[in-house]
Amino acid sequence: MKFSTFVPEGDVLGALIWLSGLTCTDENFIAKAGAQKHLAEAGLMVICPDTSPRGLNLPHEHEADDFGSGASFYLDALTPGYRDHYRMETYVAEELHALVTREFKVNKIGIMGHSMGGHGALTLGLRHAKKFSSISAFAPIANPVACPWGVKAFTGYLGDDVSGWRAHDATLLVEDGARFPGSILIDQGQADDFLDRGQLLPDHFVSRCRHAKQPVELNLRQGYDHSYYFIATFIESHVKHHATAIRGV
Amino acid sequence: MKFSTFVPEGDVLGALIWLSGLTCTDENFIAKAGAQKHLAEAGLMVICPDTSPRGLNLPHEHEADDFGSGASFYLDALTPGYRDHYRMETYVAEELHALVTREFKVNKIGIMGHSMGGHGALTLGLRHAKKFSSISAFAPIANPVACPWGVKAFTGYLGDDVSGWRAHDATLLVEDGARFPGSILIDQGQADDFLDRGQLLPDHFVSRCRHAKQPVELNLRQGYDHSYYFIATFIESHVKHHATAIRGV
Repeated sequence: MKFSTFVPEGDVLGALIWLSGLTCTDENFIAKAGAQKHLAEAGLMVICPDTSPRGLNLPHEHEADDFGSGASFYLDALTPGYRDHYRMETYVAEELHALVTREFKVNKIGIMGHSMGGHGALTLGLRHAKKFSSISAFAPIANPVACPWGVKAFTGYLGDDVSGWRAHDATLLVEDGARFPGSILIDQGQADDFLDRGQLLPDHFVSRCRHAKQPVELNLRQGYDHSYYFIATFIESHVKHHATAIRGV
Repeated sequence: MKFSTFVPEGDVLGALIWLSGLTCTDENFIAKAGAQKHLAEAGLMVICPDTSPRGLNLPHEHEADDFGSGASFYLDALTPGYRDHYRMETYVAEELHALVTREFKVNKIGIMGHSMGGHGALTLGLRHAKKFSSISAFAPIANPVACPWGVKAFTGYLGDDVSGWRAHDATLLVEDGARFPGSILIDQGQADDFLDRGQLLPDHFVSRCRHAKQPVELNLRQGYDHSYYFIATFIESHVKHHATAIRGV
């Protein structure tokens, strides 16, 4: 597995794991988000894994943008073929987490992501709350069991038994009692086509958090779409969100 | 011809034309340089043309990275076939300049670029000094008649008569008397492979400027290469350089 990283000069206080969205690779965030300056100012490194395993040829793996290669949904698959390779939850929350701790001598790690990667940040952060200092997301797929992208991916990776899907849906995780000790930061563009098409559903997640008294902050950004220009505009505030948690202020 | 642009909200005080390097398109700068925040703060728009005409099939046009498509060198070609289409100097300094003035109601325009586009910024700025408020360049091809990239491109676009090449070489333009009223800003990474290979030669340009009392500032940046990460790191200072000139401070 390839990943990209940025490590600032001087003391590194912590690391952020960035999870990218559908069709992305380890390169999108590092090349397009403009985060390096903010990370350097905060004394944080970032590590950006790829969005799926590569180099395989599983059934239907390369047929669509929203399933298979580039579209792992950051879970451990259960279906034949995929269960042997698509183990992204274990990879991110255990293997990559341990690698950062071991190789970069950093033990405070925040998790963030965009779209499918926002889903990954929310679900992995909630499922492994003790491993992460902080969670944030840009335009996350916040209730995947209720949107076309999520239903397709969960069917393909987890199978038809929907009872197993709940544990990989951020909104249902909170409904079922998962909590994160810090506030979860979400930014969402109001001119995001995927919001209009019901793929993201951040209001479902926020409503469930408020009901459960899980602290969450949702910033709706007028005029912004789903692109990396949106991310680049607001990444500074996300880096600061994580830096505050990592510094323990 | 396609171009990309960013226009900040509120009053727009001026425009910057960005010229990209070999193999780039109108998309590289706008997606990777992280300039938007700095442009917004300065009240400047940017306009990024493509690096050559597209959709043609001229002799040898698509065979190499350093000639033909994606590699116009921002001059008006004289050789058969190319002279009918590769007229980038006229396009940038006249057509695009007029378009910015007319469509965006801006009449103070700075010019900047990277590598081949740094060559473009220096030569077009010096050749059309009254049209541009300010000039800057990242890792420019500063003395093309003396480097492999320049010799190949000038042979292909201008023909074998080297006497005509001087007018499209920044160093020789200054040697032959061209002057720009403001200081020219250049940033150059010291870990840039193309610097080591003698493709850029900024020292030739700076030496000639100092001899001619043409104001120039060359910042050598330790550890930086030829990439957009280098540009993203120092673009803020270039935007401020142009903003100062455009505001007339």
